[in-house]
Amino acid sequence: MVKAVSDGIAVPQGLIAHGRGEAFDYILGERTSRAASTAITAAAASILTADRPVLSVNGNTAALVGKEMVALSRIAFAPIEVNLFHRTLRRELAIGRYLSRLGARSLLGIGDSASQTVRGIASSRRMVDPAGIGLADVVLIPLEDGDRAEALKRAGKTVISIDLNPLSRTSQTASISIVDNVIRAVPALIMAIQKMKQLSNQSLERIGRGFDNEKNLRKTIEEIVVYLRGWMKK
Amino acid sequence: MVKAVSDGIAVPQGLIAHGRGEAFDYILGERTSRAASTAITAAAASILTADRPVLSVNGNTAALVGKEMVALSRIAFAPIEVNLFHRTLRRELAIGRYLSRLGARSLLGIGDSASQTVRGIASSRRMVDPAGIGLADVVLIPLEDGDRAEALKRAGKTVISIDLNPLSRTSQTASISIVDNVIRAVPALIMAIQKMKQLSNQSLERIGRGFDNEKNLRKTIEEIVVYLRGWMKK
Repeated sequence: MVKAVSDGIAVPQGLIAHGRGEAFDYILGERTSRAASTAITAAAASILTADRPVLSVNGNTAALVGKEMVALSRIAFAPIEVNLFHRTLRRELAIGRYLSRLGARSLLGIGDSASQTVRGIASSRRMVDPAGIGLADVVLIPLEDGDRAEALKRAGKTVISIDLNPLSRTSQTASISIVDNVIRAVPALIMAIQKMKQLSNQSLERIGRGFDNEKNLRKTIEEIVVYLRGWMKK
Repeated sequence: MVKAVSDGIAVPQGLIAHGRGEAFDYILGERTSRAASTAITAAAASILTADRPVLSVNGNTAALVGKEMVALSRIAFAPIEVNLFHRTLRRELAIGRYLSRLGARSLLGIGDSASQTVRGIASSRRMVDPAGIGLADVVLIPLEDGDRAEALKRAGKTVISIDLNPLSRTSQTASISIVDNVIRAVPALIMAIQKMKQLSNQSLERIGRGFDNEKNLRKTIEEIVVYLRGWMKK
């Protein structure tokens, strides 16, 4: 991550966010919880039944799982849109070049192509690509901030978040909240999609209907409590 | 903190550590817990009864509570030693200048004065000032790493840590672990020392003997569990 900052992919503020994630990962026992696995299955079903799924990628996501996001994009037939919190054309281009080197084909959201406005977001973070997130019905937002998660939800989109903090506004707002480290969650999502590809739309929709995000977040917190209490007994 | 990096006080790695702290502060409800208050009282008693207390200051500590550490140093008659994880003379001098501007008088540990070695620590972090931490009986280490906390403890010193992660090796190793944000803990420690200054050595020693660090850490974790469970019920 420190190298990603010097390469112009991530920003110093991204390091603080990364540290926050590390701490939450720690109290989750640095493993994919059962609740996270449930959310990943629901997310795979949602992406497979979507008309226009889009994967939103910011600096930290590119730095941590750039390669995996490119693989997910291919498997899910979902384009990647570069969408930065601290937006500069220079950094968009650096991330674009980096993802292209990793095999990404068409990248959305870079420069003038991010010409559409999402309501309810301050500053330049509101701009999205009308051919990408603008039209999407399902948006995967790894490591996103709460404002944008809320605005996308309000715009009627199914929002799938990946965020290690189960109490964050992003996790609390998303339609499907994957409370897991992106390093584990994205490969797990790729595996789930590969495995579930053969299922009928009917089966996939049944999985989606069976998922209760609020209940699942409560289970996550209970898994953290069990972990912390286990620690005390050592 | 981002500004402290560009000023040469903190390093990018310090931003990640800061983010980890933010997350733990979040699940503590961003307030001084009852267990932390107990630890702060024990720490004040320990500093007041010490023969040679020393305050260790690194980049993050200087950036977050430089002014308060200088005030604590005066009130507790305890010198400040600059002691960095990512050590360079340039950064030591930058922190020294910064603390001097805030009113610090004699600063230990800068440049060649850090000539003594603490066993059991890798790299340059092992160097301490023979007139400071080298001779100290009580050392306050805000935002310290586990290696150094363990080495100071092994060297027979009473180690007082300030660290938001109750499970960290630093918190688990220290003699008195203050699990709180330095921003709240250092002013609280100053207040406790001011209030307890008039107590007899006998009373202060009684406070010290009555403090059980392991039990207190367990109480901290229980306070986190109560906070997380409370969240679930919202």
